[in-house]
Amino acid sequence: MNRTLDEVAKLIGGRVVGDGSVVLTGVSGIREALPGHLTFLSNPKYARYLGTTRASAVIVDGSLGEIDTTGPTPLLVTDNAYAAFARAMELLVEREEHRPSGIDPSAHVAPTASLGSGVGIGPHAVVLDRAEIGDRSVIHPGAYIGARVRIGCDCVVQANAVIKSPTVLGDRVVVHAGSIIGTDGFGFAREGAEQLKVPQLGNVVVEDDVEIGANVCIARATVGTTRIGRGTKIDNLVQIAHNVVIGDGSIVVAQVGICGSAEIGKRVVLAGQAGIGGHLEIGDDAVVGAQAGVTKSVPPGEQVSGYPARKHALSKRLNACIQALPALLGKVRELEKRLSKLEKEGEC
Amino acid sequence: MNRTLDEVAKLIGGRVVGDGSVVLTGVSGIREALPGHLTFLSNPKYARYLGTTRASAVIVDGSLGEIDTTGPTPLLVTDNAYAAFARAMELLVEREEHRPSGIDPSAHVAPTASLGSGVGIGPHAVVLDRAEIGDRSVIHPGAYIGARVRIGCDCVVQANAVIKSPTVLGDRVVVHAGSIIGTDGFGFAREGAEQLKVPQLGNVVVEDDVEIGANVCIARATVGTTRIGRGTKIDNLVQIAHNVVIGDGSIVVAQVGICGSAEIGKRVVLAGQAGIGGHLEIGDDAVVGAQAGVTKSVPPGEQVSGYPARKHALSKRLNACIQALPALLGKVRELEKRLSKLEKEGEC
Amino acid sequence: MNRTLDEVAKLIGGRVVGDGSVVLTGVSGIREALPGHLTFLSNPKYARYLGTTRASAVIVDGSLGEIDTTGPTPLLVTDNAYAAFARAMELLVEREEHRPSGIDPSAHVAPTASLGSGVGIGPHAVVLDRAEIGDRSVIHPGAYIGARVRIGCDCVVQANAVIKSPTVLGDRVVVHAGSIIGTDGFGFAREGAEQLKVPQLGNVVVEDDVEIGANVCIARATVGTTRIGRGTKIDNLVQIAHNVVIGDGSIVVAQVGICGSAEIGKRVVLAGQAGIGGHLEIGDDAVVGAQAGVTKSVPPGEQVSGYPARKHALSKRLNACIQALPALLGKVRELEKRLSKLEKEGEC
Repeated sequence: MNRTLDEVAKLIGGRVVGDGSVVLTGVSGIREALPGHLTFLSNPKYARYLGTTRASAVIVDGSLGEIDTTGPTPLLVTDNAYAAFARAMELLVEREEHRPSGIDPSAHVAPTASLGSGVGIGPHAVVLDRAEIGDRSVIHPGAYIGARVRIGCDCVVQANAVIKSPTVLGDRVVVHAGSIIGTDGFGFAREGAEQLKVPQLGNVVVEDDVEIGANVCIARATVGTTRIGRGTKIDNLVQIAHNVVIGDGSIVVAQVGICGSAEIGKRVVLAGQAGIGGHLEIGDDAVVGAQAGVTKSVPPGEQVSGYPARKHALSKRLNACIQALPALLGKVRELEKRLSKLEKEGEC
Repeated sequence: MNRTLDEVAKLIGGRVVGDGSVVLTGVSGIREALPGHLTFLSNPKYARYLGTTRASAVIVDGSLGEIDTTGPTPLLVTDNAYAAFARAMELLVEREEHRPSGIDPSAHVAPTASLGSGVGIGPHAVVLDRAEIGDRSVIHPGAYIGARVRIGCDCVVQANAVIKSPTVLGDRVVVHAGSIIGTDGFGFAREGAEQLKVPQLGNVVVEDDVEIGANVCIARATVGTTRIGRGTKIDNLVQIAHNVVIGDGSIVVAQVGICGSAEIGKRVVLAGQAGIGGHLEIGDDAVVGAQAGVTKSVPPGEQVSGYPARKHALSKRLNACIQALPALLGKVRELEKRLSKLEKEGEC
Repeated sequence: MNRTLDEVAKLIGGRVVGDGSVVLTGVSGIREALPGHLTFLSNPKYARYLGTTRASAVIVDGSLGEIDTTGPTPLLVTDNAYAAFARAMELLVEREEHRPSGIDPSAHVAPTASLGSGVGIGPHAVVLDRAEIGDRSVIHPGAYIGARVRIGCDCVVQANAVIKSPTVLGDRVVVHAGSIIGTDGFGFAREGAEQLKVPQLGNVVVEDDVEIGANVCIARATVGTTRIGRGTKIDNLVQIAHNVVIGDGSIVVAQVGICGSAEIGKRVVLAGQAGIGGHLEIGDDAVVGAQAGVTKSVPPGEQVSGYPARKHALSKRLNACIQALPALLGKVRELEKRLSKLEKEGEC
């Protein structure tokens, strides 16, 4: 799918600087790019490669003010280089993806299951009683769709993922391989030395356009609903406990853990390995730093980090103070000596 | 399964305050409850909802001394509201659970495997040579039972879980979807730049009444046994390394990691994302806080938190001290100025 | 496979101290050992068991200078007791391992897939179009091999693992159960409140002799390659993001998370639950402590720990300073009192 830079610019927007007639045959990273490739620059850290890249054209972020536009490589200047690159990839790269079409004869599909038109079900997949799968959705090999699960249109459930009863997926939801949606919440009531299991009877609702990474676990609610809001994106190996609610358009990075009944707002970012305590509220547009341990609710728009999580600016300041501790201890020892000397002189 | 509050009280215990003839038709959380619902209150944080809930009755914990028992909503006062709610759920909610009955024709069951009476094996499950599965145990679709694995009675192995040779599960053990029990321990002996694999030849023994969450990994011992004690409950995405021993009735919350040969006592609580170092001992009834990094053994009954994990009270005190560091640095600077002034005066 | 200690010494090296004619029938840990067993001692913490073990012989590490060689138990003194024990296990223990031989009739193997000689494919495994599997490699039950995946010789893919298109595995690679290799990288470009998916078109290359634990996730590159270097060993539940590169012979312990485009050197050790930030470089032979949060690149050979990760010696010193904070606060209060007293005296 070769195209000139001018053609790409016309389709995805942006301003061409330099020779727009250059032919683009593929995409790659700025360091690995070869002639014919389109690449991009949005992280200032990589600006130094702009002069040496072998790419035939570079999408650059207009916000990177200091970009040298006088070099030999043609540029495509845009507001959002990463998004523009994503669109250019769709134009320049032919994707060869395996997609089950039709129902593989080895799949187990209950006669009471209801399948929309154009549904694909791969080898050894399992679809149980009264499950509903919407038009054009695809269930990859070895995946499990529990009884009464409802899956919308244009969804993708990857290999060996498990969608348990009675989960509901909206439209255009992607569940990557090995993820378990709708497993029992971790609810036990201690009675003396014994742990009594609290039945887990609620469900999981995953709204439209959510993407869920690989080997994620999302627990069904004890009663009610564990809800993942529209357009939220979840990375690999994330744990989402029972009765958690996540708003629309949030980002949950790999290995985050969210305890039971926490409420995460809209457009929140939870960075990698962060932990959110039970019953807390994380306000809209809040940002929780990597590995942060959140023990109190976070107001909308606030950025927190560290353990226990504090406002990010305070965390940074406290870290600087900790770094200064050896000097502080020395200083206090010195002051005490000087003070003792003064005290002795006073006694004379 | 409608029942009056009086009937529920008779079956699960507790003291009715208000109209015991109210008919209960379901259960839910205190905020979401509708007329006809039974709900519960055990976390004082939610006490404010007692006056506004639409529930027809509320199970309350007798330990919450300040509860207003004069409101219009009938109450069921018990010693342990969460446990009572768990029992009430069993009474009021009809559970519709998919359970494979019989051996699905698509399952692969080795002729040498031994199956008890009433065993259910779902589509595409795999049971290998000489595996033994006790009466009424259920192997869900896509699960794998390795050669010579022994599974007791009334166990549940959920979809796509993997129980590898030569694991032993007791009775009433539940393994949720995607978990891997009996995978090789991570044992390599470094020889120069190469890593020599140490054969992993031991097993995993999971005792009666253990519940293991989704996508958990439990490694077989190098030699000997990795053991999970009776009644211990393990949440999702937990890592348990080779030769770990966990005592009876412990709670291991999501994403905890336990390094090789650690010994965890009875009734221990390991909160979410905590890490336990190799060869350490965590005494009976100890509590390890969320995200704690345990680098030394913990005596019985002790509560630890933070990194490196310290006694919880000390951790909290040190956190308060850290919070006070900016003020302390200012104070020391001030003291030095005052001291210098005194020193100068003395010189005069 | 009984052998005398002398025979074992001849085959694996080392110096026998005591009766080399003792017959060894098995192996075990130093505390659990029974007569007939060979055990080993490389961790000085366990030296106290040398006098009481019931083992018939003990492999000891020559580096443990203080070992008592005058006891009744025969010893085998070696340079590397753990490696010697690994070799002795191979000699003394007969392994009974299930290994699919031939193609199970229930496996789904695409007619265009290419299988080497001696390949074993277990029940319900799936091998898609144009996948290539080298000689003597084994695909266990329920595993998924995507279209055009290339797997070398003598590889093992355990039950329910998922190798997605277009991953490349070298020779003698082991992928344990439930791991997902080649899942989409987590790439989204934010446009207002929406997240635009960045196509993930690169691959994963796993070089020879790599071992990957259970329930691991390795993401394919956005463009280019996510690469795991020769002989690197990865534990369970590890997250490796898109475009990460790991050098040869590194060790990645359980639950580690590595963010996108990080470059990990050769012979690096990343201890359990550590997190490595995106685009960072971890130099050859560096060691990252358990739960460390690495926010800056780490030079070759350096040892770091804590959050944010600092040189290990500094981290330890800062921890000691933190531990001393309550005393420091008291000391500063005392100094202020003494200073105020002096100031008052000066005023008189």
